[in-house]
Amino acid sequence: MNLRIPGPTPCPDDVLEAMSRQMINHRGPEFAEMLERITAGLKRLFQTEHDVLTLTTSGTGAMEAMVVNMLSPGDRVLGVSIGSFGDRFATIAETYGAEVERLAFDWGTAADPQLVADALEKDPKLTAVLVTHNETSTGVTNDLQALASAIRGVRPDALILVDAISSLGSLPCPVDAWDLDVVATGSQKGWMVPPGLAMCSVSPRGWAAFEQAKMPRFYFDFGKARDFLTKGQTPWTPAVSLFYALDVALERLVAEGIGGIVERHVILGKHTRRGVKALGLELFADEAHASNTVTAVKVPDGVDGGKLNKLMREEYGVVLAGGQGKLAGQIFRIGHLGWANTDELDATFDALRQALPRLGFQLPEAARAR
Amino acid sequence: MNLRIPGPTPCPDDVLEAMSRQMINHRGPEFAEMLERITAGLKRLFQTEHDVLTLTTSGTGAMEAMVVNMLSPGDRVLGVSIGSFGDRFATIAETYGAEVERLAFDWGTAADPQLVADALEKDPKLTAVLVTHNETSTGVTNDLQALASAIRGVRPDALILVDAISSLGSLPCPVDAWDLDVVATGSQKGWMVPPGLAMCSVSPRGWAAFEQAKMPRFYFDFGKARDFLTKGQTPWTPAVSLFYALDVALERLVAEGIGGIVERHVILGKHTRRGVKALGLELFADEAHASNTVTAVKVPDGVDGGKLNKLMREEYGVVLAGGQGKLAGQIFRIGHLGWANTDELDATFDALRQALPRLGFQLPEAARAR
Repeated sequence: MNLRIPGPTPCPDDVLEAMSRQMINHRGPEFAEMLERITAGLKRLFQTEHDVLTLTTSGTGAMEAMVVNMLSPGDRVLGVSIGSFGDRFATIAETYGAEVERLAFDWGTAADPQLVADALEKDPKLTAVLVTHNETSTGVTNDLQALASAIRGVRPDALILVDAISSLGSLPCPVDAWDLDVVATGSQKGWMVPPGLAMCSVSPRGWAAFEQAKMPRFYFDFGKARDFLTKGQTPWTPAVSLFYALDVALERLVAEGIGGIVERHVILGKHTRRGVKALGLELFADEAHASNTVTAVKVPDGVDGGKLNKLMREEYGVVLAGGQGKLAGQIFRIGHLGWANTDELDATFDALRQALPRLGFQLPEAARAR
Repeated sequence: MNLRIPGPTPCPDDVLEAMSRQMINHRGPEFAEMLERITAGLKRLFQTEHDVLTLTTSGTGAMEAMVVNMLSPGDRVLGVSIGSFGDRFATIAETYGAEVERLAFDWGTAADPQLVADALEKDPKLTAVLVTHNETSTGVTNDLQALASAIRGVRPDALILVDAISSLGSLPCPVDAWDLDVVATGSQKGWMVPPGLAMCSVSPRGWAAFEQAKMPRFYFDFGKARDFLTKGQTPWTPAVSLFYALDVALERLVAEGIGGIVERHVILGKHTRRGVKALGLELFADEAHASNTVTAVKVPDGVDGGKLNKLMREEYGVVLAGGQGKLAGQIFRIGHLGWANTDELDATFDALRQALPRLGFQLPEAARAR
C-alpha cells in the first residue's frame, strides 16, 4: 500500500525492526541512557536549549497537556484557528475553563499576523495565544515566525503555545530563535515513528506559567515529567517500544540535520503541488502558504470524494486522506512527510490519472497524453 | 536478561514481530476490522457484555480516565487504598476536585470488606468507590468480589471504579458477574504487550454516571471513544503498532481461555512464594492475600536493597523491581505475570541464592545444600 495520509506515516524498516526488541525495565539504566540520547536529539531538532519532554500519548493529548500545564480556569486566551486542529485546540482550552477569544481565518488561508496583533491590542487581558503551525486539515502552514513576532510586538510576555504536531521534524521551527513557549509534536508525523508519543518543549517563560497554572492535571503533568527526566525516567510507564523506534529514527534525522530535513520536505511539497496541478486539479490552500507536509486538493465538481478515495485504495493501492469536518467530501489530502519519496508521489499521480476519469472527471489534454 | 518486574513484562516473539508491520490508515477498513476483533477478545476476557474501550495511554492515564469520566467536582468518594497505587487513585480524584474519604489499610494487607461497608454506612454521601484489585506495590490482591458485594450491600447503586491494571488478564475478574462499573487494565501486564495501551470497561451504570459527570475531559473522553468505536475507530490517532501487538496477544489469550490464564498465574504465584521462602526470605504480603502476578519480598536485615537489585542485574542478568514510596529499600518485587514461566523463576532463585550471601545474608542450611 502507498500510504499517503498525513500520519501515521510509513516508517523505515530499521525503525519498525527496532520495535521487535524485547522489553526492558523502564526504571533501569538502559532506558535512562536511551531517554537521555532521545532527549538530546530532540533538543537539536527542536533547536532549543530548554526542556523537551516525551509523553506517551497521541497528539491530541499533547495539545491538552499544553493547555492544562500552562493555564488556569478563567484565563483569557486567544485561539488562532485556520482549520479543524486550531478549533480543537481552542475547544480543549474551553473544556478546562479558559475563556477563549476565537480568531478564525477562512479554511485554506493562513492566519494574518496583523489581525492577531490587533486582537491582542484590543483586549489586554489576553495573555496566552494558541496557534497551529501546520494545519493538517487544510494543508496550510502558518508563518509562525511572523505570528510570534507580531504577538511579541504587542505583548512581549504572552505565552505562545504551538501545535507543531505535523510540522516539527519536517518544516522550519527553531523554537528558541522564534521565542515559542510550549511546542508539541507527534511521533507519527515527520519523525517516521508509529503514533503513541508526543514531544513537547517548554521555555523558561513556560515553566514560570506552569508554576501559576491552576487547571487540574495528573497524567500530563509537565512538572512530574521534568522531575523524572532528571533521573532518566518518565513518571508513568512509557511506551517502551515506541522509544526504541524514536531512538533509531532520531539517529537518522540528527545525521541528516535540520537543513536536509527541511529541504527534503520542500522538494516533496513542490513535487506534489506540481503533480496535482498537472492533473488539472485545484489546490485547496492558498499556494503562498501551502504546506510542505500535506497537500489538500479540491475534489473536482461532479466527482464523489468518498468514491474517489475508495477507488484509489481498493484498485490502485493508494491510501489518501479525506476532508475533515466541514470539508468532508470536498477535498482529499496527500501526505508527503517523513519517510516519503517522489516515486511514491508519482505513483499517486498515476493512480489519480487512471481513477479520476472513471468517476467522470475529464483530464486536461497534457495529462492524458502522458 | 531475565526481566522480573511487574510490567513491562516480556512479550512473546510473535507479539514483538507484529510490531514490525508497516503503518496503516487508522481511519480505514483494515484498522476497523482489527479494532473490532480486539474489542471482541477483550470483552471475552473482561467477561463483560458491555463496552470495552482501548485508549492510547499508560495505566495512570486510565486511572485518570475513570475519574474524569465518572465524577464531578465536589463528589464524595471512598478511596480504598492498600498501597501506592491505591493512594495514587485517590490523589487523582482529589486533583480533579472530588472529596475523597481515604480508607487506608496497612501496606501488605488486603482491604477489609466490612470496614469498607462501615465507611459507606457512616456517610450516605459517598456514592462512588475507588478500589485497587491487585496492588502492584505490595503484592497483595484484594478480594474484589467480597468488596463489591459489601459495597452493593450498603449502597446498591454505588459506582465501583476498579484499578485492575495488574490483575485483569491474569487473575479472576469477571466484570459483569461481580457487577463492577469501570475497570481498567494496562497492555504491559498479563496481556504480554508492550506498554502504551489501556483498556477500560464501562457498565450501563457507568454510562449513566458519565452523562452526569462534570469533571473536564477531552483526550480521555469515554463518550468520544464509544462513538468512534461504532465506526471502528478511535477519536485520536491510536498507537497502531501496539494494537497490532494486542491483536496477536489476544489471539493467544482467547485460545487459552480465562480458566487456563488464571490457573497459569496460580502456578506461577505459588512457585514464587515457595521458592522465596526456601531461600529463607520473608514475604512482605499477608500470604492469604498474596498476589499471583507479583510477589513482594522483605529485604533481609543487614542487606542493602539497592545493592541487591544492582548485583542481581549486573552479575546475574535478573532484573527485579524495588520498593516504591515508603517501601524503597525495604522490599524487592518479583513479577510473574504474562509471558513468564517457572524456569525463569528458578533462575531468579538461583541468582538470589548466589547473590544474597555476597551481601551478608546467611542462607538456611537446606538452600545452601541444594
